[in-house]
Amino acid sequence: MEKNNLISLIKVAKGEKKGSLLIKNCLFLNLFNGEIEETNILIDNEYIAGIGREYNEGERVIDAKNLYALPGFIESHIHIESSLLSLEEFSYYALLSGTTTCICDPHEITNVLGIDGIKYFLKASEHLLVSFYFYFPSCVPATPFEDLPFKITFSNFSYLLKNKRIIGLGEVMNFPGVLSLEKDLINKIYYTQKVNKVIDGHSPLLLGKDLNAYLSSGIYSDHEITNLKEASEKLKKGMYLMIREGSAAKNFLDLKEIIKEGAIDRLIFVSDDIHPEELINFGHLNRILKKAVSNNIPAHFAVRMVSLNPANFFGFKRLGLVAPGYKADINLVNNLKDFKTIYLIKEGKVVVENGKVLDIKKESYKSFLSKKVYHTIKVKRIKEEVLKVLGNKSRLLRVIKIIPNQIITEELLTYPKLEKDWVVSDKERDILKLVVINRHKKEAQIGIGFVNGFNLKEGAIASSVCHDSHHLIACGVDDESIVSAINKIIEEQGGLCITNKKEILGFLPLKIAGLMANLKATEVVNNLNFLLNLAKKLGCQLENPFITLSFLALPVIPELKLTDKGYFSAKNWQFVSLWS
Amino acid sequence: MEKNNLISLIKVAKGEKKGSLLIKNCLFLNLFNGEIEETNILIDNEYIAGIGREYNEGERVIDAKNLYALPGFIESHIHIESSLLSLEEFSYYALLSGTTTCICDPHEITNVLGIDGIKYFLKASEHLLVSFYFYFPSCVPATPFEDLPFKITFSNFSYLLKNKRIIGLGEVMNFPGVLSLEKDLINKIYYTQKVNKVIDGHSPLLLGKDLNAYLSSGIYSDHEITNLKEASEKLKKGMYLMIREGSAAKNFLDLKEIIKEGAIDRLIFVSDDIHPEELINFGHLNRILKKAVSNNIPAHFAVRMVSLNPANFFGFKRLGLVAPGYKADINLVNNLKDFKTIYLIKEGKVVVENGKVLDIKKESYKSFLSKKVYHTIKVKRIKEEVLKVLGNKSRLLRVIKIIPNQIITEELLTYPKLEKDWVVSDKERDILKLVVINRHKKEAQIGIGFVNGFNLKEGAIASSVCHDSHHLIACGVDDESIVSAINKIIEEQGGLCITNKKEILGFLPLKIAGLMANLKATEVVNNLNFLLNLAKKLGCQLENPFITLSFLALPVIPELKLTDKGYFSAKNWQFVSLWS
Repeated sequence: MEKNNLISLIKVAKGEKKGSLLIKNCLFLNLFNGEIEETNILIDNEYIAGIGREYNEGERVIDAKNLYALPGFIESHIHIESSLLSLEEFSYYALLSGTTTCICDPHEITNVLGIDGIKYFLKASEHLLVSFYFYFPSCVPATPFEDLPFKITFSNFSYLLKNKRIIGLGEVMNFPGVLSLEKDLINKIYYTQKVNKVIDGHSPLLLGKDLNAYLSSGIYSDHEITNLKEASEKLKKGMYLMIREGSAAKNFLDLKEIIKEGAIDRLIFVSDDIHPEELINFGHLNRILKKAVSNNIPAHFAVRMVSLNPANFFGFKRLGLVAPGYKADINLVNNLKDFKTIYLIKEGKVVVENGKVLDIKKESYKSFLSKKVYHTIKVKRIKEEVLKVLGNKSRLLRVIKIIPNQIITEELLTYPKLEKDWVVSDKERDILKLVVINRHKKEAQIGIGFVNGFNLKEGAIASSVCHDSHHLIACGVDDESIVSAINKIIEEQGGLCITNKKEILGFLPLKIAGLMANLKATEVVNNLNFLLNLAKKLGCQLENPFITLSFLALPVIPELKLTDKGYFSAKNWQFVSLWS
Repeated sequence: MEKNNLISLIKVAKGEKKGSLLIKNCLFLNLFNGEIEETNILIDNEYIAGIGREYNEGERVIDAKNLYALPGFIESHIHIESSLLSLEEFSYYALLSGTTTCICDPHEITNVLGIDGIKYFLKASEHLLVSFYFYFPSCVPATPFEDLPFKITFSNFSYLLKNKRIIGLGEVMNFPGVLSLEKDLINKIYYTQKVNKVIDGHSPLLLGKDLNAYLSSGIYSDHEITNLKEASEKLKKGMYLMIREGSAAKNFLDLKEIIKEGAIDRLIFVSDDIHPEELINFGHLNRILKKAVSNNIPAHFAVRMVSLNPANFFGFKRLGLVAPGYKADINLVNNLKDFKTIYLIKEGKVVVENGKVLDIKKESYKSFLSKKVYHTIKVKRIKEEVLKVLGNKSRLLRVIKIIPNQIITEELLTYPKLEKDWVVSDKERDILKLVVINRHKKEAQIGIGFVNGFNLKEGAIASSVCHDSHHLIACGVDDESIVSAINKIIEEQGGLCITNKKEILGFLPLKIAGLMANLKATEVVNNLNFLLNLAKKLGCQLENPFITLSFLALPVIPELKLTDKGYFSAKNWQFVSLWS
């Protein structure tokens, strides 16, 4: 706060100067005891000057009769990329949901663009009305087996820590690396603490000595907790528990018993990943609060978990509370069951009114990075020849067997279907060709395998979202369909595609790093639903084949995965051949 | 933490390296749910590596069977000067009481020595085992009516804010100055926040708009809260409530209802002022915890209020919790009723064992400041003539009427007792001469008045502790006694004195800035008790005449006070004459 703002704020609070905005007759929720009191809130520019019936005028007055005044919500851990939306479009729905601050881990875009991905997010979000902060991703590349054109080491990111909007080090997934004291990782952890910023944890099921060692390094948050025993131990040992309710993983119901009074200040709700349909139909953090109170969590506890508690964890002063001298981020909701935002005030400005976003500001597209961000697929169009695989009916073929709704797979051994000497997809047995193509190399570096579980009867599906390195991935019943799907994605510089032979049956462009769409959220959802229906028509019964496909190239997940360098077996922790 | 310590800590936690200290079989108190669990705690140098039965060896092993493991206690607001002890001697009893961190407001010594007083405290405490931090006093001189040789403005202290051990701005008592936007005070407040440090509040009974204005300035703590209504409003509006249990003011019983679970993380216990007898006989913060649990406050709440909560308020990372990666400040107590410290571990070292302090380290007396600190009384010896006051039996004399155990006074008007034309003490009517002498000026600047309430039948009492400017103050039945008492204090450079005529009946030297003794606490207490008995023998029935005396020169307290420039009437807010 500037000095003149400080002086003005004091004057307004004293009643010697008119405030910029008066919220009248709102129901103030006391986060410390749950009491509700009808009162007025006076704002001076970006800050709250005072709370009380004493205040009766302001340059603007909102009558908030029957509306509950809550702090603007704070998201503490999310990968925006999973929404397939631009930061700008995400912001629109975040504001509608009462979110005013958002801490993102740009892990996916960084895997595609390196540090430029973070710089792009910083730049693209700087004028948006949601206050965006970013973790610096700690684990790029995600594994030593990923073939990226860059490697992010401490030495080439440390300067970014100075940036006020880089609030710390992103989820340290590589807990074995912490325990084994990997030099570069320890440097990242050490220097992040040295500049007094937070380190975000990721330590599923880690307990006992290993947990102690992980904590000793200075990592005091975790959003991967899935059971009460784990939650109790992590809470006891000093961790802030980030209880995740995302689109994929939902942990609240398993953990709700931990939401007790004595520990309330150590608990935070986070989304981690949210899919566009859920965001636009059910909202952002308000969606979690609704579920919490319907499960008998007191409203003032649930609200603390997305306001004051995150503010304390991140060390944000004057944020997360409706109180004098605090940022005027105020969320006026219809009730404490649905948490529907009627008005949202962000730094003293009304940005949502009667459930409509008034102003969202623009992404700064003029970013010098946009060109890079819109051209992330370097590989040239491919021809069918490059997908051909010589086979031999007497040798067993390795096949990835999908387990529906899980990212782990099994290895299947079977005899190949041959045409002449070429191994081809066998739709009768549902053994389809799977290809992963390095997006960064002009001359295609292609890994070829086979997959069971998609059940396509014709055509191919392909995607440029492919965890964690986000190469191009496709599977199909014939090479022609695979090639046309891959080439469409190459031409469009990213997207989700379904083809049949030469014909493009459906396509969702994801122009931003091949991960996110520069479209309205509604278009994205409609387009995505169209693709999902198409896949069903072609025979695929998976709930979301694109998400299933996107995890088939993540080598560290058991049992068998395909990379641009061929099969990798997490069981044997090495690359393995197509043939057993 | 240095990088090699970080690496070592992780190794020890993993069990790959022997820890420096293992605490076996202790009863670990979970601060978040009150659960108690018998377990082991492993320490590596200054930090806690892990908690758990898995750990069974360390270079040193303490069997803590039946002892409760708590974090070292944190004092969040105290004026050490009120203990009359040196920092070193205070530390001794603080350690015995389980205190490992102490945040002091050096308001008194700063009134005597200016910035040198703070520099002296910083220097004197730098090697002590209690971690001392200091507020920068916001209000020196305390009032515009105090005649000090210096004035502390923002411009001459701002550089000190850089010091890591200056944690913020001390209690902003001058809340009218905040509300009226006094330039220098606003600068202090503004820049303290700019460097991201805390501002400590002091706003007794401030509510409504004025409280909003005070909070808006960024002041979010208060230790002057005396009733529940005030506590609820201040909590609701974002303040950390520092519940005071000092030797003079005790607020816990009036506020205990506020210690509810939903608010537990916002509550802190503080001492503010503690007298030496209470410290050595009843302890420091443990004294407050004992009272709290005997009043049905759950032990884990009471402990949080002197450990994790203050650590969060001040932004101390890795402090205030017994958890992996946290500072190994561990207080092993006999039970959760008496909180008697059996072992105290400070930064991994055992400093108290079986209730005995092993090592306390020394004050750095070689401080270049010591000479200054030991010579703070510049005024030359005085002679009886300078105390003579011409009178006139027909004019009414102004007399300060003491109200026992209060610092407010009343004004009494009566006819003087004269000898020749001189006004003299009248022990029959208990109207005694009172003098205040500026300690800083070679040529005595003396204020002379009269006081009712001491009831001395002979002799005089005098002190160099005299709030807030700490000039010399004395009252007595004859000038000879007053002069010998004052001159004794001048010769000894500070102390409490009782005389009868030329004879020094009792004297407690306070060589450190004339406020604190460079003696053992036991000597101080014995000496003080001797003086208090003497005063009774001389006829004074006040509980502690030295404390009463020390507040008679504080001009801003109603109704009538005496300064080195004569009477000041808070009722009229101006200096008034001896004669009505």
